[in-house]
Amino acid sequence: MNISSIGEFGLIRRFSPPFQKSLPGGTIGIGDDCAVMPWKEGRSLLVTTDMLVEEIHFLREAIPPRDLGYKSLAVNLSDIAAMGGTPESAYLSIGLPGEITLDWIDGFFLGLRELAEEESVHLLGGDTTRSPAPLIINVAVIGTVNSAQVKHRSDARVGDTVCVTGHLGDSGAGLRILLEGKPTDGDASYLLRRHHRPRPHVGEGCWLGAREEVHAMMDVSDGIDSDVRRIMERSQCGAEVHLDRLPLSPQLERSATRFGWDPVEIAATGGEDYCLLATVDSARWPDVARGFEAAFGRPLTAIGSVTESGLAYLRGNQPAELGKRGFNHFTE
Amino acid sequence: MNISSIGEFGLIRRFSPPFQKSLPGGTIGIGDDCAVMPWKEGRSLLVTTDMLVEEIHFLREAIPPRDLGYKSLAVNLSDIAAMGGTPESAYLSIGLPGEITLDWIDGFFLGLRELAEEESVHLLGGDTTRSPAPLIINVAVIGTVNSAQVKHRSDARVGDTVCVTGHLGDSGAGLRILLEGKPTDGDASYLLRRHHRPRPHVGEGCWLGAREEVHAMMDVSDGIDSDVRRIMERSQCGAEVHLDRLPLSPQLERSATRFGWDPVEIAATGGEDYCLLATVDSARWPDVARGFEAAFGRPLTAIGSVTESGLAYLRGNQPAELGKRGFNHFTE
Repeated sequence: MNISSIGEFGLIRRFSPPFQKSLPGGTIGIGDDCAVMPWKEGRSLLVTTDMLVEEIHFLREAIPPRDLGYKSLAVNLSDIAAMGGTPESAYLSIGLPGEITLDWIDGFFLGLRELAEEESVHLLGGDTTRSPAPLIINVAVIGTVNSAQVKHRSDARVGDTVCVTGHLGDSGAGLRILLEGKPTDGDASYLLRRHHRPRPHVGEGCWLGAREEVHAMMDVSDGIDSDVRRIMERSQCGAEVHLDRLPLSPQLERSATRFGWDPVEIAATGGEDYCLLATVDSARWPDVARGFEAAFGRPLTAIGSVTESGLAYLRGNQPAELGKRGFNHFTE
Repeated sequence: MNISSIGEFGLIRRFSPPFQKSLPGGTIGIGDDCAVMPWKEGRSLLVTTDMLVEEIHFLREAIPPRDLGYKSLAVNLSDIAAMGGTPESAYLSIGLPGEITLDWIDGFFLGLRELAEEESVHLLGGDTTRSPAPLIINVAVIGTVNSAQVKHRSDARVGDTVCVTGHLGDSGAGLRILLEGKPTDGDASYLLRRHHRPRPHVGEGCWLGAREEVHAMMDVSDGIDSDVRRIMERSQCGAEVHLDRLPLSPQLERSATRFGWDPVEIAATGGEDYCLLATVDSARWPDVARGFEAAFGRPLTAIGSVTESGLAYLRGNQPAELGKRGFNHFTE
């Protein structure tokens, strides 16, 4: 038996139980976007780490080093945002094949610095080493959050409104443009940029984190088809998702028409959107949605609701199907 | 120009300056064994991260998965020890080639858990992903330390006694046994085990950290020939090291005789000893050495002293030379 046969989540379920025993009070370990540890004066530390491996997560010829530096930090800040926290410091480990040029290095660190400065995150340490072949990047980020406002994947309640903080599918479409060698003009270049330079929803995460009517939260990294299931699994509930309510950018809609793609399938399964997926007390939903739009000038979009069990897709309130499942690192 | 031409330290010097500006008070970034951040009630957080890449840091066929799990955590605990701190939590990212078996995974996590339990460290999170070829392991560890007792590489003073907390060269000899295919009986198996399962000197680091007469400290990861230079560089000083005073295990001495190796060269340049290298106020040295031996039942060994500038090697108080330099990931 090898790991391909059990997948990423099977692997985590296999090794994690002994590490989840006898944790200190207030500490949350494996299973959410971040680990949580008590810090001081009603605040907690959040810790997250993500590994990006060439050929699995990116193609070195396809992504400019500056964008890769930006994205390497962005995916981690997104995990901090998912818990309602504020990122504070970052730690970079990088494994470099010998042929990497100094220009490449300079570009990579420029992009990383751009986002670090935007979000006031300090790069405080790391490790540099050689790699025999793929370029490897691991970033760990520490953030802080009011302990009373930490959002978990496990707090969805039946009846909650399920919502997202941004367009879905742009990043997935950008990747498809890259892989299929489509022309990268106008709309395509917008989608590609959304794939290469995702904006972590840190402000949105803090705003939602501060509201007690927001129950469960996580970031959209594998696509909502996969990520909604993570919330269901952790919250022991189900969900119905209206495929015709997934928020699509005009750029995605026009590109899908042009290339003959199903934009909804891309929106549900493309992944790497790095916006936030949350469940909100439905009685308070209009209030929260109005407040979000007033704060950010963009809508918080309801895409469904939390049910007792099972994931049901709907279109025009009729049962519907999705072709493709979320991304599994070990089998695709 | 590629990275091989500037090496690991040249690379760090190239990208780090912008990240060292305007850090919050009490925060120490890139350049020591750990980053340091203010925490609460006179204590600070320590953060360190290390990446181990197959073929560069280990050979998968040569190291049992259980030992690799143990070592992946050990090298990080050693960095926490080097600052005088206590490790608290760990975060593992692992990039796995598809052919890795579940048995291998189970062994790896068993070894990691053994050391985590020995040192009361909680594995609280991480990331699992596929890797196209090499096995990749990144561990980040968070520890805590009394803020007044943090030890830095930069605090060596002229006249200080330079000392180490354990035998040097065992791990380097273990690696050489592996690479040269020597028989792994008796002494060789001891040395191999020291290479595969290094014991981080956490207790020793806490003990030395609590003493103000201990000035600079770091862990011996690249070999003292390289690591003494790191202290010199950060403390703006020199050092003289007595090659005939490097503490050698009887197993190393016997194996060196048997295989015709220079044990002193291995002790000075082999690396991965993961004991601690410290500089101590020479007026207080006898006291510190006595106290250490009483506490640990093993000597703290003086190997030289801090000078104004330059690294001088001595044998029988006469100038001496070392053949090989410390390890450079990018050029060897």
